[in-house]
Amino acid sequence: MSQFLNSRENAVTEAIDGVLMASAGALSRLDGYPHIRVVVRSDWDKSKVAIVSGGGSGHEPAHAGFVGRGMLTAAVCGDVFASPSVDAILAAILAVTGPLGCLLIVKNYTGDRLNFGLAAERARAFGLNVGMVIVDDDIALPDLPQSRGVAGTLFVHKIAGAMAENGASLDAVIDTARRVIANTRSIGISLDTCTVPGSPKEARIPPGRAELGLGIHGEAGVEQIDYDGVRGAVAAMTEKLAAGMEDKPHVVLLNNLGGTSVLEMAVVVNELVQSPIGARIAHIVGPAPMMTSLDMHGFSISVMPAEKADLDLLAKPVGLAAWPGVSAIRPVNIIALPDGLTPIAPLASEHLPTRQFLTECCKLLIEAEKDLNALDAKSGDGDTGSTLASAARALIEALDRLPLADHTQLLRAMGQELSQTMGGSSGVLLAIFFAAAGDGASSGLGMRDALNAGLTRMQEIGGAKLGDRTMIDALSPALDAYDKGFAAAASAARAGADLTATYVKARAGRAAYINAQQLEGHVDPGAEAVARLFEFLARRHGGSQGKAAE
Amino acid sequence: MSQFLNSRENAVTEAIDGVLMASAGALSRLDGYPHIRVVVRSDWDKSKVAIVSGGGSGHEPAHAGFVGRGMLTAAVCGDVFASPSVDAILAAILAVTGPLGCLLIVKNYTGDRLNFGLAAERARAFGLNVGMVIVDDDIALPDLPQSRGVAGTLFVHKIAGAMAENGASLDAVIDTARRVIANTRSIGISLDTCTVPGSPKEARIPPGRAELGLGIHGEAGVEQIDYDGVRGAVAAMTEKLAAGMEDKPHVVLLNNLGGTSVLEMAVVVNELVQSPIGARIAHIVGPAPMMTSLDMHGFSISVMPAEKADLDLLAKPVGLAAWPGVSAIRPVNIIALPDGLTPIAPLASEHLPTRQFLTECCKLLIEAEKDLNALDAKSGDGDTGSTLASAARALIEALDRLPLADHTQLLRAMGQELSQTMGGSSGVLLAIFFAAAGDGASSGLGMRDALNAGLTRMQEIGGAKLGDRTMIDALSPALDAYDKGFAAAASAARAGADLTATYVKARAGRAAYINAQQLEGHVDPGAEAVARLFEFLARRHGGSQGKAAE
Repeated sequence: MSQFLNSRENAVTEAIDGVLMASAGALSRLDGYPHIRVVVRSDWDKSKVAIVSGGGSGHEPAHAGFVGRGMLTAAVCGDVFASPSVDAILAAILAVTGPLGCLLIVKNYTGDRLNFGLAAERARAFGLNVGMVIVDDDIALPDLPQSRGVAGTLFVHKIAGAMAENGASLDAVIDTARRVIANTRSIGISLDTCTVPGSPKEARIPPGRAELGLGIHGEAGVEQIDYDGVRGAVAAMTEKLAAGMEDKPHVVLLNNLGGTSVLEMAVVVNELVQSPIGARIAHIVGPAPMMTSLDMHGFSISVMPAEKADLDLLAKPVGLAAWPGVSAIRPVNIIALPDGLTPIAPLASEHLPTRQFLTECCKLLIEAEKDLNALDAKSGDGDTGSTLASAARALIEALDRLPLADHTQLLRAMGQELSQTMGGSSGVLLAIFFAAAGDGASSGLGMRDALNAGLTRMQEIGGAKLGDRTMIDALSPALDAYDKGFAAAASAARAGADLTATYVKARAGRAAYINAQQLEGHVDPGAEAVARLFEFLARRHGGSQGKAAE
Repeated sequence: MSQFLNSRENAVTEAIDGVLMASAGALSRLDGYPHIRVVVRSDWDKSKVAIVSGGGSGHEPAHAGFVGRGMLTAAVCGDVFASPSVDAILAAILAVTGPLGCLLIVKNYTGDRLNFGLAAERARAFGLNVGMVIVDDDIALPDLPQSRGVAGTLFVHKIAGAMAENGASLDAVIDTARRVIANTRSIGISLDTCTVPGSPKEARIPPGRAELGLGIHGEAGVEQIDYDGVRGAVAAMTEKLAAGMEDKPHVVLLNNLGGTSVLEMAVVVNELVQSPIGARIAHIVGPAPMMTSLDMHGFSISVMPAEKADLDLLAKPVGLAAWPGVSAIRPVNIIALPDGLTPIAPLASEHLPTRQFLTECCKLLIEAEKDLNALDAKSGDGDTGSTLASAARALIEALDRLPLADHTQLLRAMGQELSQTMGGSSGVLLAIFFAAAGDGASSGLGMRDALNAGLTRMQEIGGAKLGDRTMIDALSPALDAYDKGFAAAASAARAGADLTATYVKARAGRAAYINAQQLEGHVDPGAEAVARLFEFLARRHGGSQGKAAE
């Protein structure tokens, strides 16, 4: 069993029960498992025309998924790809048919026609008013008088269901259903066959080929065509559809045959609207799995003219998750980009002490390149030193355009520079650190609190905590000691950095994937860089209380 | 390209445009393809808290499919399985954020955290009030501090979106979102990997195995387990979920990872409700593809406690086809079978002439067995004679229980007998013929019109027309000539039967699959049987006007 089933034998009854359980009580079933598998509306009072459909299973959500007010009254479920029994169909008819009668919507397959037909005869013997329409929307074989019934059946379910809900007579529903059937044309395509429960999957379609004009039971398509992308596939399908489409607005039903990804189905919409029949497509139902062929990697397109009355019936809301509704097709609406994507460059200003201080810090990082790379080689890919050195070189080059005289602006501007010049996660995290610190500074925080705001935000985004073997292990204690002066901050940073050599499990960053033996005894390179910066500050400023950037 | 795409490069933009085209104008996008891929509500007026989410593509319908009133305000779409750029996220924030601010809902992947985080910083520099929550609902790796964000994210989208639509403040939305995240637990399983556009599919999971505890980017699951059916799979998942679930009602979100058939997903519901955590599942969202991993043949289960306030927000209607709504879980409701399935046996009655007539007809068919089989061998499987002979033998045995003295009842009763004793399509069709003829007779039609009613119904159900090389080619002209007497009817039947030997293309029945050379010169066996019966009638009754059954 390569599917999420327990057995072929129980697949259908278990699936029906699953649908019922998740229906909030809206659906019930007739007794008689496994022979009788009939899903009915729980709230049905026989006061209107009943709409009954069904057939083989394997087409889910058809048919049980479309049972509900305004669509089907009952669904009769056969085994996978096999018609339900006459008794099961008769049970459904007898259970739901009231004085206004019942319409059977049957897809054009011999088994379904015969079994629904005979059940209808037996029901008529009870004096019930039973009508039957046969859906034959498949245009794969244009000269075959017995076209198959495929996904266009959903048009009939919805329109007949809405009419019945509106109180129409059986004759009126039948007339409309026949007109819809006559006007509906469908064609399907697939890149692979479906997996029938309990059977090995047939490898029928080689790579680079697609089957065009297929039914919904895994039978071979009418032809195999070369496949080199969705555009050609849609072109092949719309060419066949176009032949019978009048030059007026149509509604299209785009049906996922079961195994096509939602991404692909959206691309199909795009192709369909741009296809030669695109100008004639005014409305769309889907894309969605409606009449599937188990897990088939394919889809079908059904079209019918979009008459106002039919559209109103299609658009009438139903509370069924399986029915995707009908939407008007509209050109893509494009909104101009908002202002602000190109950062406003701060006004450059000169301040020699700041220039000198930043230059020295940058040089320190450039000189530390090899050491930090070596440390990083123990736990990562050995490039932390180079990443920081590159960023430092870029920052030196950027000094002329930075607002050196405005320290609150400067923090944010440095964040902006780093986000553009420094690669990897650490570049983004440092950019976030400086941006948030700049935010703090411009809202009036002192430097320590501003830097702490940066640290908090960086931790929030990066997810690293103290002890996770990152630069935070040096930065956080340094900021805690910041008020006691640079010497204290430097000592705290160094102690924090050294402690990282004892952390045998990194909790964040790339080092999280390295085992204990490889990490032990090696200081985290980010923490080392932070410690060296604070040690430099302490040497430069002695024991003074201080704002680091001044 | 083995998918319904044109190229890997254009897949995401083409899919987004497809979603927009099918949105009836409800969705727009920002300019800036292909770098900026941002889908926004067309009707957004910035009067409420904006809800922005996104991340890599390949998770459709997430995230663009959930943009709409009451859910997301904007979705930022990266390339397949790759985080969107900071610029794209910033563009989204700037485009939708009004005075009440904006919440970013981010799944816990490093790229998304960093890029959304930095974009938030840049937006804050414009004075915008931007909050961010990180969803980490995956429990596959219980001791990893950085759990992934998977399908449980939908709970956050829906609840935060509904709160924002209700006019809640950003702080209130953030508080609720954080609580929902803290309470949400998810786990996934798969039987196969996904197909990443442009890359060969990885054959990682052998038959008989499943991957448990997987993310949504095709990465390997935490463990491979033996797989022998959905029951064991759900048991393995619910065991992990149960550990963290309190003993109170929960809501479950059942997410199709993309390639699982609708049939299978319904079976999963059934298993889930019957699992050890089933008693704690009060409501369900789905099953539906919500946070997919392209076409992955798998699904995920997410649970959170079903607090009343959260349920109300989850249940608030949104006009989005991708959101399946939330339903109460209910036991399967079973309705008793209707009366009437066991046909009421007609009161047997004796009428010797009728008994003799029917017996003679049946004997004629029994004697014709070999001839008819030989004819059928030319166009079918050579069993028409045997089928009819068997039915005739069974009818002779049934004579004692038939209402021989009531000819309107008799027709229907014969239909009933044939439907039980005669196999294949022809048995059903003859049953329909006699049932409908009986209907006609009991509503007052003369025998010719009653038989014609039967013929009409049989054609309607069977789909065969005159000239399709079936028994109708003899029966229809015979009934047309019926009023002129049995001799005329017999001549017409014989002429019609003989004509079938000239039809080189069968239009219905099994002979439709046979080529012209094989058919030519051979009378259709069904038509031959009808002609022989009418010839027998003519011999028996001479030239009299007549009711055949008398």
